[in-house]
Amino acid sequence: MTDRLKKQLEFALEIDKEKNIFRQTHLSNHGRNENDAEHAWHMAIMAYLLKEYSNEPVDIGKVMLMCLIHDIVEIEAGDTYAYDEENKKTQAAREEAAKQHIFGMLPKDQATELMALFDEFEAYETAESKFARAMDNLQPLILNDSNGGEDWREHGVCATQVHGRQDKTALGSQTLFEVVDSIIKANVEKGNIKDE
Amino acid sequence: MTDRLKKQLEFALEIDKEKNIFRQTHLSNHGRNENDAEHAWHMAIMAYLLKEYSNEPVDIGKVMLMCLIHDIVEIEAGDTYAYDEENKKTQAAREEAAKQHIFGMLPKDQATELMALFDEFEAYETAESKFARAMDNLQPLILNDSNGGEDWREHGVCATQVHGRQDKTALGSQTLFEVVDSIIKANVEKGNIKDE
Repeated sequence: MTDRLKKQLEFALEIDKEKNIFRQTHLSNHGRNENDAEHAWHMAIMAYLLKEYSNEPVDIGKVMLMCLIHDIVEIEAGDTYAYDEENKKTQAAREEAAKQHIFGMLPKDQATELMALFDEFEAYETAESKFARAMDNLQPLILNDSNGGEDWREHGVCATQVHGRQDKTALGSQTLFEVVDSIIKANVEKGNIKDE
Repeated sequence: MTDRLKKQLEFALEIDKEKNIFRQTHLSNHGRNENDAEHAWHMAIMAYLLKEYSNEPVDIGKVMLMCLIHDIVEIEAGDTYAYDEENKKTQAAREEAAKQHIFGMLPKDQATELMALFDEFEAYETAESKFARAMDNLQPLILNDSNGGEDWREHGVCATQVHGRQDKTALGSQTLFEVVDSIIKANVEKGNIKDE
C-alpha cells in the first residue's frame, strides 16, 4: 500500500469518531440526541433536493461535500451549542487547532483542499457556503419543530437568539428563509420560543 | 409554501428515520452498532477522498449522492445483514416497495431521479455504482478490522462469504480490492474469519 493510501485510510478511520459527537438537537418522534455525522448526512441530502431555492447558482457537489465535512473538527473541538455564548467565544480557536490536526492526517493536497473548504464554510461568503449554512440552520429547525419545539424549551431560547442565527438563511435562500420565519413565528405563538 | 416545497420538506423529515436503522457493524474503538445514516455519510466522504482509485473515471457528485441515498429504503425494508442468506431472499421485493413509497413522497421529477439512482446502485453496472458499492464494502470492513474482526467472529462468518461480497470491490477499484484482500487474509490468519 502506498503511503498516500495509508494516510487516506487512517483519516477515514479517524472521522468515524464524529458519530460520537452529540448535538443538542433531538431526532424526530421525540428521539435521542442527534450526532454530527447524522446531521451532516441529512444536510447534504437536503442541499441536493432543495438546490433550486438557492439565491445564486451553486456547484451542488461542492455544497454537499462542505455539508459532509463541516463538523469533522468537532471530533476534537466538541460541539458548540448555537446559543451557548460562553463556549462560542473559544469556538474558532478550538476548531482551528482541530482542523490543522485532523485534516493534516491526509496527503498534503487533500489536506489543503479540505481545510480550504472548511474555511469557506465558516467564512459565509460564497454562494456555496451560504447555501450549505442555510442547510445547517434549516435541518435542526425542522427536527425541533416536528418535536413541538422541545429543544428550544429545554434551553429557554428566545426569539432574538433564534433570529440571530436563522435570519442568515436568507443569505443562501430567500424562499427557505420564509419557511424558517413562519416556523419561528408559529413556535413563538405556541410559547416554545420565548418572545423577548 | 408551494406544494412542491411542502413535499420536499416532508421527505426531508421522513428520512430522519434512517438514523434509527442499525446495522451489524460496530463503530471503531469497540463502539455501539452503526446506523445507516452514519454509514452513508462515511461512505460519501470516503468516495470523494478515494476517487483517484476508481478503475474508471466517475462523476463523483453522483457517486456521493448514490452513497447518501442508497439505504433510505431500509427505513421501511429494514437492514439486511450481508451474510443473512434467508433474509436476502426477500430483500429485493421489500426494498422495491419501500423505494416506491418513500421516494414517492417527493415531487415527481425528484422521485423519478432518486429511484433511478437507487436502481443504478443496485444494478452494479455503471462506473459510479461500482465505485459506490466498493465504498459500501470497504467502509464496514475497515471498522470491523479496526475492532479486531469482532463482527465476523460474532456471526461466525467464513472466508467464502466475505470474499463473495468483497471480491466485487475489484469491479470498482483494483487498488482498493488489494487492500481489502490483504485485510481479509490477515483476519483469516488471526482466526477472526473462518477459513473454510
